[in-house]
Amino acid sequence: MRLYTYYRSSAAYRVRIALALKGLDYTGVPIHLVKDGGQQRRPDYLAINPQGLVPALATDDGALLTQSLAIIEYLDETHPAPPLLPPDALGRAHVRAMAQAVACDIHPLNNSGVVGWLRREHGLDDAAVTAWMHHWMGRGFAALERLVGQGGRFCHGDSPTLADLCLVPQLYNGRRFGLDLTPYPRLLAIDAACRALPAFQQAAPENQADAE
Amino acid sequence: MRLYTYYRSSAAYRVRIALALKGLDYTGVPIHLVKDGGQQRRPDYLAINPQGLVPALATDDGALLTQSLAIIEYLDETHPAPPLLPPDALGRAHVRAMAQAVACDIHPLNNSGVVGWLRREHGLDDAAVTAWMHHWMGRGFAALERLVGQGGRFCHGDSPTLADLCLVPQLYNGRRFGLDLTPYPRLLAIDAACRALPAFQQAAPENQADAE
Repeated sequence: MRLYTYYRSSAAYRVRIALALKGLDYTGVPIHLVKDGGQQRRPDYLAINPQGLVPALATDDGALLTQSLAIIEYLDETHPAPPLLPPDALGRAHVRAMAQAVACDIHPLNNSGVVGWLRREHGLDDAAVTAWMHHWMGRGFAALERLVGQGGRFCHGDSPTLADLCLVPQLYNGRRFGLDLTPYPRLLAIDAACRALPAFQQAAPENQADAE
Repeated sequence: MRLYTYYRSSAAYRVRIALALKGLDYTGVPIHLVKDGGQQRRPDYLAINPQGLVPALATDDGALLTQSLAIIEYLDETHPAPPLLPPDALGRAHVRAMAQAVACDIHPLNNSGVVGWLRREHGLDDAAVTAWMHHWMGRGFAALERLVGQGGRFCHGDSPTLADLCLVPQLYNGRRFGLDLTPYPRLLAIDAACRALPAFQQAAPENQADAE
């Protein structure tokens, strides 16, 4: 498998964690989101992912998959151990809802294309961009602090699920952009439990071949 | 079941289509996103959905589900006929990726909370808001025009899937906000095939009890 990735992309980071948890080998193909005006906009990459976003996954059979959550569900269906979704329908709905609270309602608002547009078209300066990012992350984390399951060490129960694979990269972004995370003690405890696992360490931005 | 809904919410519209396709009875509970400063921000609704977004679904067993795609997958797992995902893992990945291209990369950028923030904090006027919305919808639809399957009448094959449930409400939003849809002939053909079905008509904004 080939994973089109960028070390700091939190969506690619989610997929890297899934691959590491499942012990799957892959070749990372770095797509630099800043250099060359954004390598994700090059025609050869747009032929792989028409959305011009990372990640994308090329399977051994040559299929091209896009969208991190869809890729992770595919990996979970084709390589079931360890499972990244609970066995019951209600549990799966809970995990998917937490994952989507990050992947739909936090991350897309803060990605580089959106922030670039706000700077370019509406003249937002660094302080305004930071306020924008903090607003959506803070709002999302506050909801997640209430949505995460009680009693388990992870977002849902005692093993990592799709929700944790979304939460940890988003908290990484929060730290990167200076958000105060102390209002979210339950999320921080889950984050610590995740980052103690080798798979999460292996997938972390600073441990990627394309890290700068 | 009780569906917390708003007639114009495209995320609620997705779930309404799923319920109608599966022939499931439910009670609609209208949450007006504009009146009273936004009924979704009331404490009684935040107890149902801490994110303060519609839709939410209360099951007959009293479980509270949030996030439209998670709700639809739950409905599909618990009421499998007709299926809203293909039988094969690659097909499911394709359908989920198209759904997420709408639900992650178009819709959250254009929802009322985000547009309200841009007006309030950064002084965007009607023309600037329209340009913002058109930019993200246009970019997303252009990618989807390339991502949809070839040969079938719907986004993937010859029956509606999760992807169609996302596409049709987003095209509704495109029309509502005056986007030229002629560059997307394949999406328009799929939209017409969907809207010819009674379930899509039943779920449409103009046919809801809370429509104004």
